[in-house]
Amino acid sequence: MTNIAPLPAGFLNLLAEIFAAEDILTAPEDCWTYGYDNSRRHVLPQAVVFPTTHEQVVSVVNACNRFHVALTARGRGTGTTGATTPLKGGLIVSLERMNKLVEFSPDNRYIIVEPGMTNQQVQDIAKERGFFWPPDPTSAAFCSVGGNLAYNSAGPRAVKYGTPRENTLGLRAVTGAGKEIRVGVHTSKGVVGYDLTRLILGSEGTLAIITQATLKLTPLPEATKTLRAIYNSVFDAAKAVSAIMSQPVIPCALEFIDGNAINMIRQYSESDLPEHAGAMLMIEVDGQLEGLDRAAEKVAAAAKNDGLLDIRLAQTDAEVKALWQTRKALSPALRKVAPKKINEDVVVPVTEMPALIAGLGELSKKYNLPIINFGHAGNGNIHVNLLLDPDQPEQGKKAHACLDEIFSLVLALNGTLSGEHGVGLEKRDFVDRELDANSLELMRDIKRQFDPNGILNPDKMFPLV
Amino acid sequence: MTNIAPLPAGFLNLLAEIFAAEDILTAPEDCWTYGYDNSRRHVLPQAVVFPTTHEQVVSVVNACNRFHVALTARGRGTGTTGATTPLKGGLIVSLERMNKLVEFSPDNRYIIVEPGMTNQQVQDIAKERGFFWPPDPTSAAFCSVGGNLAYNSAGPRAVKYGTPRENTLGLRAVTGAGKEIRVGVHTSKGVVGYDLTRLILGSEGTLAIITQATLKLTPLPEATKTLRAIYNSVFDAAKAVSAIMSQPVIPCALEFIDGNAINMIRQYSESDLPEHAGAMLMIEVDGQLEGLDRAAEKVAAAAKNDGLLDIRLAQTDAEVKALWQTRKALSPALRKVAPKKINEDVVVPVTEMPALIAGLGELSKKYNLPIINFGHAGNGNIHVNLLLDPDQPEQGKKAHACLDEIFSLVLALNGTLSGEHGVGLEKRDFVDRELDANSLELMRDIKRQFDPNGILNPDKMFPLV
Repeated sequence: MTNIAPLPAGFLNLLAEIFAAEDILTAPEDCWTYGYDNSRRHVLPQAVVFPTTHEQVVSVVNACNRFHVALTARGRGTGTTGATTPLKGGLIVSLERMNKLVEFSPDNRYIIVEPGMTNQQVQDIAKERGFFWPPDPTSAAFCSVGGNLAYNSAGPRAVKYGTPRENTLGLRAVTGAGKEIRVGVHTSKGVVGYDLTRLILGSEGTLAIITQATLKLTPLPEATKTLRAIYNSVFDAAKAVSAIMSQPVIPCALEFIDGNAINMIRQYSESDLPEHAGAMLMIEVDGQLEGLDRAAEKVAAAAKNDGLLDIRLAQTDAEVKALWQTRKALSPALRKVAPKKINEDVVVPVTEMPALIAGLGELSKKYNLPIINFGHAGNGNIHVNLLLDPDQPEQGKKAHACLDEIFSLVLALNGTLSGEHGVGLEKRDFVDRELDANSLELMRDIKRQFDPNGILNPDKMFPLV
Repeated sequence: MTNIAPLPAGFLNLLAEIFAAEDILTAPEDCWTYGYDNSRRHVLPQAVVFPTTHEQVVSVVNACNRFHVALTARGRGTGTTGATTPLKGGLIVSLERMNKLVEFSPDNRYIIVEPGMTNQQVQDIAKERGFFWPPDPTSAAFCSVGGNLAYNSAGPRAVKYGTPRENTLGLRAVTGAGKEIRVGVHTSKGVVGYDLTRLILGSEGTLAIITQATLKLTPLPEATKTLRAIYNSVFDAAKAVSAIMSQPVIPCALEFIDGNAINMIRQYSESDLPEHAGAMLMIEVDGQLEGLDRAAEKVAAAAKNDGLLDIRLAQTDAEVKALWQTRKALSPALRKVAPKKINEDVVVPVTEMPALIAGLGELSKKYNLPIINFGHAGNGNIHVNLLLDPDQPEQGKKAHACLDEIFSLVLALNGTLSGEHGVGLEKRDFVDRELDANSLELMRDIKRQFDPNGILNPDKMFPLV
């Protein structure tokens, strides 16, 4: 931090003109918590502001351009890649107070919200009229829609219902140059001009700050059935995933938990999971009540193979809830066990999952690092958790080498380095392995067009040049 | 054409190095048919080439850059906006011979094809393993996948299954600068880098030439049920569309035909349509056989209102086929009645359909021009057909003024000028009414990045500057 120049007085005066006093923080102790996300990286921002209007966002972007101050937009800080860590100090623009409902149009299946609304708040509003917004990160209760859009965050339901890119109709935003744009449409179709909506989705606050989003809503299914399948080995489970995904009933969740994760669950909670389980699948189907039993049967039939130890349909809501709690508690539980865990979210085509799992097993042995895998198997999206021992700081280097090999493995299997967490800082230096040089150059060109002074979230997403 | 300079001899020599003799056309009579699309606009290209490999595409783009020759990529010429009309003469790159299957991976739910494969060929391959690719333009039997991607073309199924942007995982392409890029992923999730895949989809050949596409497949439904509902007035039908779209069963087609179109059908074919029908809906539901009757009942219940004259479930495959034939014959039939018809494909939020229809009725009267409306009502995507009398060439000006007012009406209703046909030439001069100046500027910037010499499909999609 010592080499970051103090914010110019003229800039601070300008902030005071744009924002009420209670919407500006400058004391380091107040700014502190706005310097990290769930990656546990931390850089102290020099100031934090809380816009409540689109116009304030325009003004603050213009101020940052005028004084060449780095601006990092932030939702609720639940990201896992350090993407909102203000590397160059500067200003954090926290959008958490810009959280109004703009328009709810159930008859047209859309809702327009400001970015600071939480995912859960959107779901609560939509539910009243029988709808939901498909993206469902584990942190839904707390994370903001703006963050979901910035990382194109998904969750279990993506396997059937898609990610934000499939569920967002349009945006109002302010580019890095301080220009207001309205992109996209209010309708489920629209082909006028280039698709800037999806270009901004997943751009991690490097192109523009979203000030309003028109989200496409989906009708809530009448009913849901949840199955738990336990397998002898991860390979048997992976084979089942492949079989499930190549038959007509698309599950609305197809979650995978490996043997190590199962052992952890057994250790930390009451559980009827058998001792020698190699892997577990949670499979959910939803839709109209009539026919749903048959859909569950079909999925169960596809899930059957020689390695299946046990498959059962959850009989009560409490059982379903318990299953999901188990699944959703995994990530925080791992954090307790291994505060320095590295949580990746690589993706491979589902048929390559056995090869990925086998490769991960070998790397775990080679580097003598415990690896626990779970995730959204229907998308081939596996959360690979490297458990580091905080008492062995020298493990960091080893973990980096291991990660390097994991990424090579994933790319060799036609996969991608991130399914839903994004790049941020964590994977910044690896993306040129996945993206070709020409594509990277185009992306940097686009960044310059949107943000000519490079004020928006600098040094993120792409390797430094 | 007189002011277009002949192609330089050096350029023609270069083409002869890149292509076999049978893959180059230069005689005007041979090039003629490559100068128009279904908009009936025509400009004679100076040469046509038929690449069969990605490398040839790279070479020909480089040749065009070197000699500053305009290059218009073309599929099968079924577009309706003049987007492939080679305004500046130059070279047509017809991709119809670049039509190989690259990889079919049903277990991973994708198929990789070259752009010249027809939509129907993709469906045929996918069907063998129980899948389909959702985009289904009326011209599916003939149109190419490359064209579908270039315009983000959809069809009736989009209401449930989305457009190419929701059904394409990745692309291999050559930019206007002659650079090869591979964008997107092989998986249903992936968030590394900006979304160049969807930026290229719908860019009408102005940014890059697609040489391979990874298409996301969907399992074929077990069964389909088709309903025909006839209404007293278009307003009653529009009200029903709104009601259908706000209940949980999403139809896989929800097509609308107005009273004028019904009269035309009655005139040109045997039909049991009642004489005073004001509008008709074709509603299709699909899914698992078990429960489908119940789904059809629910949709039928939503379709009921005071203006409903008759609703019936098609009882046989022949009946379903007849219904679809009626619907799909509309556009060609209109062309026969009014060879100079103008066919728009505006979109409004479904609740605004009654206002749109009412406004169109008023404009039809005001300009004394018959207007026939039909289209994909579930998306609010209405094909507005202005029927011009070829014997009254002075109608052109009137039609332009009428169109102008139609677009204003659509935008006032929060709609978009095009749902699936794209912009091309037809709507080029209107898009700045929909897109704000800042967005337009960004789009032009992006165009310059991809295509610095402006060789790709010049003077299309955006107003001339």
